[in-house]
Amino acid sequence: MSTATPSYDELASTWTRMHHLGHLQSIAGWDQAANMPPKGNEARAAALAEMAALLHRMRTDAALPVQLQRAEQEPLSDMQRANLREMHRQWRASNALPESLVQRQQMATSRCEHAWRTQRPANDWKGFVENFRPVLAVAREEAELLSQLNGVRKYDAMMDRFEPGMTCAQVDRVFGDVRQWLPGLIQQVTERQARGTVIAPVGPFDLKAQRDLCEQVMRLLGFDFEAGRLDVSTHPFCGGVPEDVRMTTRFREDDFLGSLMGTVHETGHGRYEQNLPRDWLGQPVANARSMALHESQSLSFEMQLGSHPGFVGQIAPLVQKAFGAQPAFETHNLHRLMTRVKPGFIRVDADEVTYPAHIILRYEIEKPLIEGEIEAEDIPALWDAKVMELLGLDTRGNFSNGPLQDVHWPEALFGYFPCYSLGAMYAAQWFAAMRRAMPDLDTRIDAGELNVVFDWLQQNIWTQASRWTTDELALRASGETLNPAHFRRHLESRYLA
Amino acid sequence: MSTATPSYDELASTWTRMHHLGHLQSIAGWDQAANMPPKGNEARAAALAEMAALLHRMRTDAALPVQLQRAEQEPLSDMQRANLREMHRQWRASNALPESLVQRQQMATSRCEHAWRTQRPANDWKGFVENFRPVLAVAREEAELLSQLNGVRKYDAMMDRFEPGMTCAQVDRVFGDVRQWLPGLIQQVTERQARGTVIAPVGPFDLKAQRDLCEQVMRLLGFDFEAGRLDVSTHPFCGGVPEDVRMTTRFREDDFLGSLMGTVHETGHGRYEQNLPRDWLGQPVANARSMALHESQSLSFEMQLGSHPGFVGQIAPLVQKAFGAQPAFETHNLHRLMTRVKPGFIRVDADEVTYPAHIILRYEIEKPLIEGEIEAEDIPALWDAKVMELLGLDTRGNFSNGPLQDVHWPEALFGYFPCYSLGAMYAAQWFAAMRRAMPDLDTRIDAGELNVVFDWLQQNIWTQASRWTTDELALRASGETLNPAHFRRHLESRYLA
Repeated sequence: MSTATPSYDELASTWTRMHHLGHLQSIAGWDQAANMPPKGNEARAAALAEMAALLHRMRTDAALPVQLQRAEQEPLSDMQRANLREMHRQWRASNALPESLVQRQQMATSRCEHAWRTQRPANDWKGFVENFRPVLAVAREEAELLSQLNGVRKYDAMMDRFEPGMTCAQVDRVFGDVRQWLPGLIQQVTERQARGTVIAPVGPFDLKAQRDLCEQVMRLLGFDFEAGRLDVSTHPFCGGVPEDVRMTTRFREDDFLGSLMGTVHETGHGRYEQNLPRDWLGQPVANARSMALHESQSLSFEMQLGSHPGFVGQIAPLVQKAFGAQPAFETHNLHRLMTRVKPGFIRVDADEVTYPAHIILRYEIEKPLIEGEIEAEDIPALWDAKVMELLGLDTRGNFSNGPLQDVHWPEALFGYFPCYSLGAMYAAQWFAAMRRAMPDLDTRIDAGELNVVFDWLQQNIWTQASRWTTDELALRASGETLNPAHFRRHLESRYLA
Repeated sequence: MSTATPSYDELASTWTRMHHLGHLQSIAGWDQAANMPPKGNEARAAALAEMAALLHRMRTDAALPVQLQRAEQEPLSDMQRANLREMHRQWRASNALPESLVQRQQMATSRCEHAWRTQRPANDWKGFVENFRPVLAVAREEAELLSQLNGVRKYDAMMDRFEPGMTCAQVDRVFGDVRQWLPGLIQQVTERQARGTVIAPVGPFDLKAQRDLCEQVMRLLGFDFEAGRLDVSTHPFCGGVPEDVRMTTRFREDDFLGSLMGTVHETGHGRYEQNLPRDWLGQPVANARSMALHESQSLSFEMQLGSHPGFVGQIAPLVQKAFGAQPAFETHNLHRLMTRVKPGFIRVDADEVTYPAHIILRYEIEKPLIEGEIEAEDIPALWDAKVMELLGLDTRGNFSNGPLQDVHWPEALFGYFPCYSLGAMYAAQWFAAMRRAMPDLDTRIDAGELNVVFDWLQQNIWTQASRWTTDELALRASGETLNPAHFRRHLESRYLA
């Protein structure tokens, strides 16, 4: 059968094959975190490295550049042309890296991540740094190669993997602005909250009841359990494939709010994935736009919606049913608990006001780490100093709740952290746009009409996938590109009004 | 670096790569049965088909025949030579099948197996046969191709995939012999047991307690939980990889013995896999020898050891601890329950005396099915007639507990069923050999010294993997090739002595 777009069709079928093989990689990756017994790790690492190398060979096949060039001349639809642009982007990134580097990276991160799972609870920084050094060495090689290719700074090149087009210059500007007003805001809010009273929930909280509660709230948030699951892992994440989303959480008997809100967060990721354009799955144009956009969904769920008084009013009865009635579970108190601002050690447990501080300190460490200005051994001292400066807390010797707390560095995800705070800013921007389009938004959320939020996100973000650049998508969705003023306004209106 | 065995080394590295990719395939296959939500199936089927096609391309690479031929001339160790023989066998089997057939088979079986999961409980034979017809059609194509290649009957060619060298002629002879004495034995045993009394356990049996009990018994049987897991699936199986064995079972609130003994059965498979020669994993010589040999391990665990009075004495206290004391849980009664002979519908629930009847009837249906002498539509009538003839039971209209009860046909595993009964015969042969070597075997099992059994199996079966042909392995282990007399003697001594 002849076609007017033979080169484009070849490319599309190559990407479909990679999508199929990537499916197995994703499920095995999820399984590694959620199920795998310890002795399985060496074999799993070798298997994942083999697949990474195979996919890398496919992305670096000598036929691709010719096909990409020829496809440019073919009569493509707008969507196909966007797809071709994204193929180009992926091809360019993949062809900077030799197969041996990809394989060494997979091996180093698998080993480091696996050991980290026991080293973190053991507070074993010394053991960790042994495995982390090779991870960092390979990451720097990668940064060097990508930097040369794209003609940008090394850290910019790393960030581009998650947030296409983002640069240190922009992040420095945005985070520099936040550094101006954040300490003052934290102080104002904590002083204000010190005058109110909050009743602490009384545990222990049955793990089975917590799990059931999480699943109920996921249903309330529209997660499709026929196309996904909730399981347990050391570090919560949203994995799997768009057709079968694998969310994880973790439970503690003495606290249910952490895992509940963590689950609400991951559900935002999950719904984005579950609602990517079905007919285009497997093609890069159907991928989520970027990590900041992904975080804008998890934070739309966790912060914008999850801590909205109207939403809290809907989950309060579920909490009471799960653990029995307690004064702490009254809607107003639950809302106060969920919007409690308190500087703490742990990023994933942080409230939305202190959260940017966690990101800024990581950014200020991983940027020079990648640029080769500091070494792995320098991390603890820098960490301690920055946590003291930004959050007023002493973390000396406390590696578990310090630089060992996140899975990102063991997994070489340098350049990812800024996306969390950029995502928080986009989330505030989406809700500001929704309020402009629907002035009664808050009343409708109060009334339990959550679909107005989901419909807006589905139409403006989820189904748009990678059709547009991030700036174009933001412009179409909200009438402007990233504007961090909405985030500041959101915090001030929620915490100081 | 130069080597004296360049072609062999190339082959070994190709097989290592296939082992790594097969790892992802196995874990995704296990996940499909144990975890996957329904809407994930189409994408999973496509992903598994892609991987099957990829592995098929690797096994049919044009370089292989040349390398296999050259390696024959290289100075190989005995183990390497055995490995080369097994590579040859795999290469021969794989090269009979074109990639398109492999892909169609994967698609057809994935669809059929997935639908079967709901069609079986719905007793929906008519729906099932729609998906089963394509499975059968592709299987017949495969049988035809393999038959031409090996110069054997079509069904022999199918059986050879699981039990190398086994033929209809041999199976007809062995099963023909069993048909002579089995009905009489069943009658004698049931008459004899009708004179004794058995106390039925009183349920319901808490599912969590059942799961804990199964895990305790697995530990008693030496299963390594650092290199494997127990989960739940519709049809119990032992999957995963030798480094990370994924066993599944299923629980019913009204019966704990079925899942307990099913777990003991799968643990036999699991320990075989966990104890294959570690240094050779990835090479075909390190694979389990054959399916009958695999079943000889599960049945050594379930029947020879699991129903041994000494072993029952060890699990009785665990059962009492799990569900509370009951007269039914006294050792003697528990042993009577576990050796109760009663013709029934379900193969996996069958006792070891009536079990061969289930196999014989399946063999007598799938053989003509593959040979093209009957069609899928003919199955129910044949099934009904044979169950009546062999077990005296009426299965008309009861498809769920009839031809829909097993996953084997949806998965195109034609030629597998005979291995179960051949495995039971080998298991009896191993224990006869153990008793010759250790005349006090039964006293030692009574005393809880289970390691004498595991050590014998590890030395003679597990670590031998595919080093020898099945006949040679049996000869080295027990001094003779398959001798079904041991099985008859085992049944007579356990049930009529």
